[in-house]
Amino acid sequence: MANEREEKMRSLGYSPECHLKPGAIYRPVAIDGTTAYVAGCLPFDDNQELTSRGKVPTDVSVADAQKAAALCAANILRLVRQEVGSLDRIERVLKVFGMVNSHPDFGEQHIVINGASQFLVDVLGEAGWHARSAVGMAALPRNTSVEVEAVIKLKPQ
Amino acid sequence: MANEREEKMRSLGYSPECHLKPGAIYRPVAIDGTTAYVAGCLPFDDNQELTSRGKVPTDVSVADAQKAAALCAANILRLVRQEVGSLDRIERVLKVFGMVNSHPDFGEQHIVINGASQFLVDVLGEAGWHARSAVGMAALPRNTSVEVEAVIKLKPQ
Amino acid sequence: MANEREEKMRSLGYSPECHLKPGAIYRPVAIDGTTAYVAGCLPFDDNQELTSRGKVPTDVSVADAQKAAALCAANILRLVRQEVGSLDRIERVLKVFGMVNSHPDFGEQHIVINGASQFLVDVLGEAGWHARSAVGMAALPRNTSVEVEAVIKLKPQ
Repeated sequence: MANEREEKMRSLGYSPECHLKPGAIYRPVAIDGTTAYVAGCLPFDDNQELTSRGKVPTDVSVADAQKAAALCAANILRLVRQEVGSLDRIERVLKVFGMVNSHPDFGEQHIVINGASQFLVDVLGEAGWHARSAVGMAALPRNTSVEVEAVIKLKPQ
Repeated sequence: MANEREEKMRSLGYSPECHLKPGAIYRPVAIDGTTAYVAGCLPFDDNQELTSRGKVPTDVSVADAQKAAALCAANILRLVRQEVGSLDRIERVLKVFGMVNSHPDFGEQHIVINGASQFLVDVLGEAGWHARSAVGMAALPRNTSVEVEAVIKLKPQ
Repeated sequence: MANEREEKMRSLGYSPECHLKPGAIYRPVAIDGTTAYVAGCLPFDDNQELTSRGKVPTDVSVADAQKAAALCAANILRLVRQEVGSLDRIERVLKVFGMVNSHPDFGEQHIVINGASQFLVDVLGEAGWHARSAVGMAALPRNTSVEVEAVIKLKPQ
């Protein structure tokens, strides 16, 4: 079902449709009342190919890692949409935890994760603003450069 | 009090009884209504001895780290049972954050944390399924190889 | 508005007033009903200068990192107070996630984060006790030595 948020997402170059299947033993989204816990998302493209691997900034530039972070955020929205039927069900994004596969000397995780945060604000407007931590990991699954998870408030059904 | 979930846990080789005391300034579980926030659990055995130390996969193999992750998950259930009286009070596991003490080149955190996730599903069935992130830490307390925390939904009393 | 908790905070050498502005694309606090998600806080002083940089224990001692952790916790309380008007609105601290910028061989993250936990208990009393994870990061934003985030339960208005 098309709507303003999904059209916005498409206009930014990201399909709202979800092509992701969990690659391990977990569920993509767990909902408790109006609180949705979304699993850590990697920068998978529409073919479920990982688009960004390695450490920032030595293997992946800050600019490229920002793009990977935006794709992680797109995948968060795709998972939620798949679970609840429409991005219109999102009341607001409450919390983002943004993880950057970091060289030990790297200190601009907040700049990288801005790629995810800006995407959420671009697509959802005021509802996209969230509390956040941006942090540097020693390593991440499949050697992804970025992984982002979120807690999202839904509108009551 | 014996019940199906606790018998299942025992049949897997883990006592449901809790022998853990916090080793720092925190509470093992904090409950808000029907939401239980469980502290990060380490692979302590029934004697509160840490069973797995060092980095994966250089000091600890993936297979051994999976076992450590299962023990972390057992300790999560033990803490919840101690706090609320029975594993039957668990409505479902909402969120797991699984942390692997990782060599910087290691990228199979999701395989390691499957040890925790499978354990939760084995003991709790459908209620054990959860959203999840699996990530690689530079270091962890007491040099544990794995640490797992969870958010769990309880049944109303 | 002065009250017992804020006087306690002042007596420990920390103003309850908030001087912090987000340095990236996020909100300091996101509230859902009586649940407040607080963004990851760094050890910024009243002039928004970062007071502790580098890895523990090679660049920053455990004792100094504990002080940095306490300042992170003070900043968490400052952000909440700024958002809801008074520390009296805090029902209890539910969850703390304490992150230490760690040398790969460091294993006393729980001792460092005790600096934050003790501060919360000192200021809030029983309401300051929380579930917690203390973990070791490869790197953190602006090369801070410590970052702490929290989930806090508010009293209904």
